[in-house]
Amino acid sequence: MTETATVRPLRANAVTHWDFEADVVIVGYGIAGAAAAIEAARAGAEVLVLERTGGWGGAASQSGGFIYLGGGTPLQKALGFEDTPENMERFLLAALGPGVDEAKIHDYCQGSVEHYTWLVDQGVPFKEEFWGQPGWEPPHDEGLMYSGGENAAPFNTLVPPAPRGHLPQMTDKRLGERGGGYMLMKPLTDTAESLGVTAEYDIRLQRLIVDDDDRVVGVVAKRYGDLVHVRARRGVVLATGSFAYEQKMVENYAPRLIGRPAAAIEQHDGIGIRVAQALGAELAHMDATEVAFFGDPQLLVRGILVNGRGQRYIPEDTYPGRIGQATLIQQDNQAFLIIDEAALEEGMATETSSPYFRQPPTWAAETVEELESDMGLPAGALQATVEVYNRHAAAGEDPVLGKKPEWVRPIGTPLAGFDMRNFTAGFTLGGLKTDLDSRVLHVSGEPIAGLYAAGRCTSGICAGGYASGSSLGDGSFYGRRAGRAAATN
Amino acid sequence: MTETATVRPLRANAVTHWDFEADVVIVGYGIAGAAAAIEAARAGAEVLVLERTGGWGGAASQSGGFIYLGGGTPLQKALGFEDTPENMERFLLAALGPGVDEAKIHDYCQGSVEHYTWLVDQGVPFKEEFWGQPGWEPPHDEGLMYSGGENAAPFNTLVPPAPRGHLPQMTDKRLGERGGGYMLMKPLTDTAESLGVTAEYDIRLQRLIVDDDDRVVGVVAKRYGDLVHVRARRGVVLATGSFAYEQKMVENYAPRLIGRPAAAIEQHDGIGIRVAQALGAELAHMDATEVAFFGDPQLLVRGILVNGRGQRYIPEDTYPGRIGQATLIQQDNQAFLIIDEAALEEGMATETSSPYFRQPPTWAAETVEELESDMGLPAGALQATVEVYNRHAAAGEDPVLGKKPEWVRPIGTPLAGFDMRNFTAGFTLGGLKTDLDSRVLHVSGEPIAGLYAAGRCTSGICAGGYASGSSLGDGSFYGRRAGRAAATN
Repeated sequence: MTETATVRPLRANAVTHWDFEADVVIVGYGIAGAAAAIEAARAGAEVLVLERTGGWGGAASQSGGFIYLGGGTPLQKALGFEDTPENMERFLLAALGPGVDEAKIHDYCQGSVEHYTWLVDQGVPFKEEFWGQPGWEPPHDEGLMYSGGENAAPFNTLVPPAPRGHLPQMTDKRLGERGGGYMLMKPLTDTAESLGVTAEYDIRLQRLIVDDDDRVVGVVAKRYGDLVHVRARRGVVLATGSFAYEQKMVENYAPRLIGRPAAAIEQHDGIGIRVAQALGAELAHMDATEVAFFGDPQLLVRGILVNGRGQRYIPEDTYPGRIGQATLIQQDNQAFLIIDEAALEEGMATETSSPYFRQPPTWAAETVEELESDMGLPAGALQATVEVYNRHAAAGEDPVLGKKPEWVRPIGTPLAGFDMRNFTAGFTLGGLKTDLDSRVLHVSGEPIAGLYAAGRCTSGICAGGYASGSSLGDGSFYGRRAGRAAATN
Repeated sequence: MTETATVRPLRANAVTHWDFEADVVIVGYGIAGAAAAIEAARAGAEVLVLERTGGWGGAASQSGGFIYLGGGTPLQKALGFEDTPENMERFLLAALGPGVDEAKIHDYCQGSVEHYTWLVDQGVPFKEEFWGQPGWEPPHDEGLMYSGGENAAPFNTLVPPAPRGHLPQMTDKRLGERGGGYMLMKPLTDTAESLGVTAEYDIRLQRLIVDDDDRVVGVVAKRYGDLVHVRARRGVVLATGSFAYEQKMVENYAPRLIGRPAAAIEQHDGIGIRVAQALGAELAHMDATEVAFFGDPQLLVRGILVNGRGQRYIPEDTYPGRIGQATLIQQDNQAFLIIDEAALEEGMATETSSPYFRQPPTWAAETVEELESDMGLPAGALQATVEVYNRHAAAGEDPVLGKKPEWVRPIGTPLAGFDMRNFTAGFTLGGLKTDLDSRVLHVSGEPIAGLYAAGRCTSGICAGGYASGSSLGDGSFYGRRAGRAAATN
């Protein structure tokens, strides 16, 4: 093992020259890094951000930009939605578990309105318009949307639903149709720059540097093949993203995601996790993954989704990320959409944000029996499913899975089947265990001195479940905490 | 944090007095520790085992004693079963994944016949009798049984099935009906003692001791409240078992198991994992769990098992541990057995190894419609399931899930329903990442000098799946490797 390949910490007394110095050194300039930079600078620290790509942004700037916020944000109120921190917390406890960090979820919900205001204060724009149609993202620049299944079974009967997916408004159409993430990152990095934060690009984290008391006092990085030693007088913040693109870590920790990383960027190689593990950092929920499902929600709600045995398994009108998780984890990635011609035509005529969802049906048939046979399902299996569904749909009910009456209609004929096997992909949610001040915890339980982390290199508010906006949400929320804690420790 | 509470390594130069010394120090006297002790002693090392309870045995001695072996063991051959290392490997790759350690599985299968012979040579008795009935364990002292679903769908059509659950014979009935684990551990610990291995009891691991090069050179332990420092001249072997009883680790890593630990012992607190994490050890598959299902296999095969929606989800004639995993992980712990009166009477009349499985039915009804209503299932849901099942069962087929023809019979009336929700419990399978010599790997990829591990504090051959005998199997197999490697390094 050469020095450059290891993630073992380097002793500070082995460093002969510091190439850069700052009070707070932040590794990664995505959402968590930007939020940390702002708050560290505001707390009076000299801040240096090290980013391995050629510019700021990270996965955040390429994302849709959802931030999961609630508890009664000004945007929710302006659009007529009631919400409380308590209802938000109840929903997240139910949807993101089991095994969630309850203290973190409580903290996050209590601070959510303030965090919304903070984002607005940094210049992140939210348009006062609600999008209520099925979909992953709104088709235009609407600012609020359901993004976690709050208004679908089983949650809608457990907790008063409120939309909490807050979307920055894309104001410059020349930048593309889907750019909420850019509109989140641009004002944050502008703010950071205005506060004197400096950034060095094309520089990759290799190892942490520790003093004789095992306190983190800097990082070893690599730039154009050369090692660079960066001193952090007060603390290092890891904000390096997920491990979705590190094949060995995915195999070791989240093997269902082998071969299907998505919504992460190739820079997400888990390096921030590994350098901290080398210091004895505790991990959490390394198997947890966001799972996208590439079926058009406008079609899903109008049909029934069945598994490889022809059985329904999830309310088709829920958050598509829940459909993705259920399909990949519980149904061995087997999914088929069954939809009749009238519903298909209606769904195809809707405005959708994702034209790439639109494939032709895999099978078309005059009867359910014919479709079932064409699909290779056991005789009677799909017929039984449709019969039970239609029996209750005639009364506008779905006692099997609780799809909302507005979407419940009997499946007629002719009808079609869409093969949606292997329609899943995602990113990892597990990582370093941190406390409410974003301090990286040692396996002993104590914080590792001088080391902070936020974003998807940490385990945030999600344990096994997911809601769109959780990652940019806890990444920005705990990124701020990390910056503040590192600056003031 | 006091010194005794932390799992951080202690520097050797801080040790003023060594209470014990040996070439190889093994922590934990269960299956992995016993196998390590024997091989380390045979390799010429002075061996000391530290055990936190008052005697040898660990979880192994309280278990049924299954050891997963194959590839053509003398026992398999004597009982007329053909098997090859390649078929064993194909099955394990299919059944224990995704994300399995392929090198470890290959190695384990290639060495399996030799390992069987070794066990016999140490005095472990296997009776040449096969038990072919559904069940967790044989009712008597039979030596061989299917223990992983090899002869059930989907595996029976992928790989030629062979039974690989090898059971030590209980020869002394006074020790109780279920004692294969004792008959495994007794000869192993007897052998170890005959080789000069010494054991100290009531002594609990606290921390590892490392020299200035971070090489592990001993352990800090606690005995009756006093700290004890134990020097290991050649190496330390961790064989401390799972983390099933460490609530925080279960919440962090395997939250589906919260509140339902089983087949582990309360000493399984993950301490071996944590002291190694503190040195930067890599982990693997921390979410993986064995899951027992407390339904009587003799009844399960004669009925149909349905989830909370009244749908079948697993072939009822497979290994009950697969039923447990599918129920807990894929069906939200919802399971109901539907069985007609004739089949119930037949099943109840069979010999079963587990009388405690026998509860009265939760519901009894004259028709499926009545049962469905009594169970609170949506109208038509269970009827549809039974209709599809019976349609094919009339021809002795189960195209939906592939239950074997011998168990496929139409569900008649009157019939009964058993509420089997929350019938699951289990233990953790994840832990330290080790190589084929049982060296504990650092997150950098290199071994941690002086540190070895085996058994359920490591990630063995299982990633997500399980077969009975995997744990005693890889624990003994890699326990031997650990002992040899530690003694000869």
